[in-house]
Amino acid sequence: MSSSDIFIGETIGTAILILLGGGVCAAVTLKASKARNAGWLAITFGWGFAVLTAVYTSAPLSGAHLNPAVTLALALKKDGIDWSDVPVYWGGQLLGAMIGAALVWIVYYGQFLAHLTDNEIVGTPAEKSVEAQEKGAGPVLGIFSTGPEIRVAWQNVATEVIGTIVLVLAVLTQGLNDSGKGLGVLGALITSLVVVSIGLSLGGPTGYAINPARDLGPRIVHALLPLPNKGGSDWSYAWVPVVGPLIGGAIAAGIYNVAFA
Amino acid sequence: MSSSDIFIGETIGTAILILLGGGVCAAVTLKASKARNAGWLAITFGWGFAVLTAVYTSAPLSGAHLNPAVTLALALKKDGIDWSDVPVYWGGQLLGAMIGAALVWIVYYGQFLAHLTDNEIVGTPAEKSVEAQEKGAGPVLGIFSTGPEIRVAWQNVATEVIGTIVLVLAVLTQGLNDSGKGLGVLGALITSLVVVSIGLSLGGPTGYAINPARDLGPRIVHALLPLPNKGGSDWSYAWVPVVGPLIGGAIAAGIYNVAFA
Amino acid sequence: MSSSDIFIGETIGTAILILLGGGVCAAVTLKASKARNAGWLAITFGWGFAVLTAVYTSAPLSGAHLNPAVTLALALKKDGIDWSDVPVYWGGQLLGAMIGAALVWIVYYGQFLAHLTDNEIVGTPAEKSVEAQEKGAGPVLGIFSTGPEIRVAWQNVATEVIGTIVLVLAVLTQGLNDSGKGLGVLGALITSLVVVSIGLSLGGPTGYAINPARDLGPRIVHALLPLPNKGGSDWSYAWVPVVGPLIGGAIAAGIYNVAFA
Amino acid sequence: MSSSDIFIGETIGTAILILLGGGVCAAVTLKASKARNAGWLAITFGWGFAVLTAVYTSAPLSGAHLNPAVTLALALKKDGIDWSDVPVYWGGQLLGAMIGAALVWIVYYGQFLAHLTDNEIVGTPAEKSVEAQEKGAGPVLGIFSTGPEIRVAWQNVATEVIGTIVLVLAVLTQGLNDSGKGLGVLGALITSLVVVSIGLSLGGPTGYAINPARDLGPRIVHALLPLPNKGGSDWSYAWVPVVGPLIGGAIAAGIYNVAFA
Repeated sequence: MSSSDIFIGETIGTAILILLGGGVCAAVTLKASKARNAGWLAITFGWGFAVLTAVYTSAPLSGAHLNPAVTLALALKKDGIDWSDVPVYWGGQLLGAMIGAALVWIVYYGQFLAHLTDNEIVGTPAEKSVEAQEKGAGPVLGIFSTGPEIRVAWQNVATEVIGTIVLVLAVLTQGLNDSGKGLGVLGALITSLVVVSIGLSLGGPTGYAINPARDLGPRIVHALLPLPNKGGSDWSYAWVPVVGPLIGGAIAAGIYNVAFA
Repeated sequence: MSSSDIFIGETIGTAILILLGGGVCAAVTLKASKARNAGWLAITFGWGFAVLTAVYTSAPLSGAHLNPAVTLALALKKDGIDWSDVPVYWGGQLLGAMIGAALVWIVYYGQFLAHLTDNEIVGTPAEKSVEAQEKGAGPVLGIFSTGPEIRVAWQNVATEVIGTIVLVLAVLTQGLNDSGKGLGVLGALITSLVVVSIGLSLGGPTGYAINPARDLGPRIVHALLPLPNKGGSDWSYAWVPVVGPLIGGAIAAGIYNVAFA
Repeated sequence: MSSSDIFIGETIGTAILILLGGGVCAAVTLKASKARNAGWLAITFGWGFAVLTAVYTSAPLSGAHLNPAVTLALALKKDGIDWSDVPVYWGGQLLGAMIGAALVWIVYYGQFLAHLTDNEIVGTPAEKSVEAQEKGAGPVLGIFSTGPEIRVAWQNVATEVIGTIVLVLAVLTQGLNDSGKGLGVLGALITSLVVVSIGLSLGGPTGYAINPARDLGPRIVHALLPLPNKGGSDWSYAWVPVVGPLIGGAIAAGIYNVAFA
Repeated sequence: MSSSDIFIGETIGTAILILLGGGVCAAVTLKASKARNAGWLAITFGWGFAVLTAVYTSAPLSGAHLNPAVTLALALKKDGIDWSDVPVYWGGQLLGAMIGAALVWIVYYGQFLAHLTDNEIVGTPAEKSVEAQEKGAGPVLGIFSTGPEIRVAWQNVATEVIGTIVLVLAVLTQGLNDSGKGLGVLGALITSLVVVSIGLSLGGPTGYAINPARDLGPRIVHALLPLPNKGGSDWSYAWVPVVGPLIGGAIAAGIYNVAFA
């Protein structure tokens, strides 16, 4: 694959991933959405099929990593990808994630306004900002980035590490299941259901970022967008869904190299 | 494929699509239905598996476009279908959508009556008609056609454009994933889950038509059916789910021709 | 296939189908079940995956019709199965359906007792019997057989006919999608999701029997089982889910022979 | 396969199975979890996709039995695995199940504490322990092991026997469907949906262990973990989900050998 195919593929794929993944969070959260309160199953299937759509669409160009932790693991894997390709993958992923988050804002433009201007934060703009800031990760930030139910760094990191190990082990063993034919259509389907599984089973404590680009890109967009009463972007937590998944990806590559390769 | 196979395949396929897609909306909406209030997940999986059933059944005859925006994109695609086939596809799709909507009415005949004659619109027929008209897109119209939660033309069009881009990109890249073998069984499954994804993630604002025939055909049938108290057919919105998906299909074909072909 | 393989395969397969299909109805309906009130999505996915499990398990022996309407259609189809095999298929299907219904009773033995002896029907046994009889198809009969929400024969028959046409068309076109390789693993999966689709979209009015054995076999078992306060078996409706699906199967075979074969 | 590959594969696979399966129970049960009260569909899909992820990941090493009842059946099957491999499989499965249960505890560490220290059991530690003990299988034990809604040994065993027969028959016939190519990717997907089916349809009375390691390993971990107010480990029931599935596996192997082999 050429570097430009990799970059374009990862940008398109991650944009679709975040458009659909952030989209289901917006759909379930915001006022004046037909999907409001559709529940946790809707969110987990929504993210899973977002992975399916994004992988399926971008795989012909870049192989569809769409996740810096996956790229890291594929570089650490025996006979893995070239390290020189890693920054190309990561760059496309972060750019795509930001584009996807901006597209969510366009699709749900009126819903964001209806939700944020009807909410119960009152007072002057400055007071509002403070109050929203104090609330930390509110429901609107949750459309963009993850946040923990109980804020304990070691547990939050551990949860993200363990979730990412499961994801990346499934991605790495795919090659063995597919008899070396690489990422096939069926592999995309299985991976998407693995993501549903991780969401249902391991998503309770932190909202399962398991992907640094999925969390960081949209958090940057949240900070930049001109949304009224949006509250803070919870930067104090931002390192957890970046560091945890990268550690998880590296551990999964190690397990793979020792036990499977 | 012969023109008659195309026309018959698209008519049968789109009739099944709308029978099942409109059917799940009727099932969840109407009184005296076992599925009443089954929720947004039921609607999105119902439409997704409607696509699966319809594509699977009609693919051997016509290739199963079942959507004028898909047909447009396949004509605009490099080395795509002949433009002379486009009106045959479109004709079959619109006819099929109308047949499907009429079948929904037969399957839920008693439920429509129970629902519409128990509802709270009171007064003389003329008053009822005016009141229903003013309400715009009510729940019974929602069984046939889509309508926005917040009526802002640019956002409604943008939502339909973006949703259709995702759908059509997945359809176009299918050929690459399948190594040129065309629409296979697994492709039908993936496409149906992509439609579930679009519904869960992008359906909140407008109800995701992403298909001009899916919206226009049933709207015509709604206008024609002798349903009591059915209200207006919301013709002022009817252009959005026609124009938006066609623009989206054209953009997706452009992206495909530049980045993937 | 030998007649004994056909008979054994259809008996095992239909027993699994009704064990799992009736099982999900029991699970969602009865007191002291962990799945109580799990909703319509649980029922429709439960029946769909019951089809998957049953087809997958019995296909190597008999080809997994598991439905007299499917067998009829495969006999009517051009170059279809021998008519002499039809009674063997039908016999195995009806026997299997009765075994499956009896197994549901064993699995949910305590739940049936808890449900039926706590319910609100009071009075002497004779009075109870009358009262339950008058109620017609109550929730316990619903675990065994289908019943309509609105009892209008022509609509009920039409709904079963239309639902069965969709099912059988999908079964018949499978051969075309599979390039003549017959019922493969992927075909079993698609068929099961088609059944989920029919349930979600067309199940609202009658509970989608779409299979004479699925309805008649368990209804006979309901009449025979020593369940207290079980109420009547609603024999006046019993012809609808037998006749409707057979008509539907025949029509689907006709459509197939004209348009696809 | 070498014994070490079998042992490592089964340990990794069963650890992932219980991490994800126990995880979804924790997610739905515990306070301060985003998935709280997500319902029975979430639990059944969560366990099903746990099977998918675990089988997919460990199949290249050990063939992914992950269940002593499956291993027993594959040894009893005509031309099955060597009996000398059985203890290796069983050892890896039990160890993996214990590791998986411990990982659930880590992922939901804060949630366990929040849940168990806020609950309504009051009094001195000794009183609490007695009260919790008397309650028997409470919601926290339910994250680790199964328990019946109605405690009648013969029915509880019968339910586990019947559920396991369905599971193991599907596993054994897989080879026939796959034309002898063994456990393929599609087989893993089908098996996982069979498990969803068993959960939806047969899980109501006992919570569907259908796997001795899945129940016994986590129950041991529950007994060992330093959780406050955790209550007893309900050892009086522990034999049912061990004996029932083993009987079921043996019966399924017998049916297979007589009817299919």
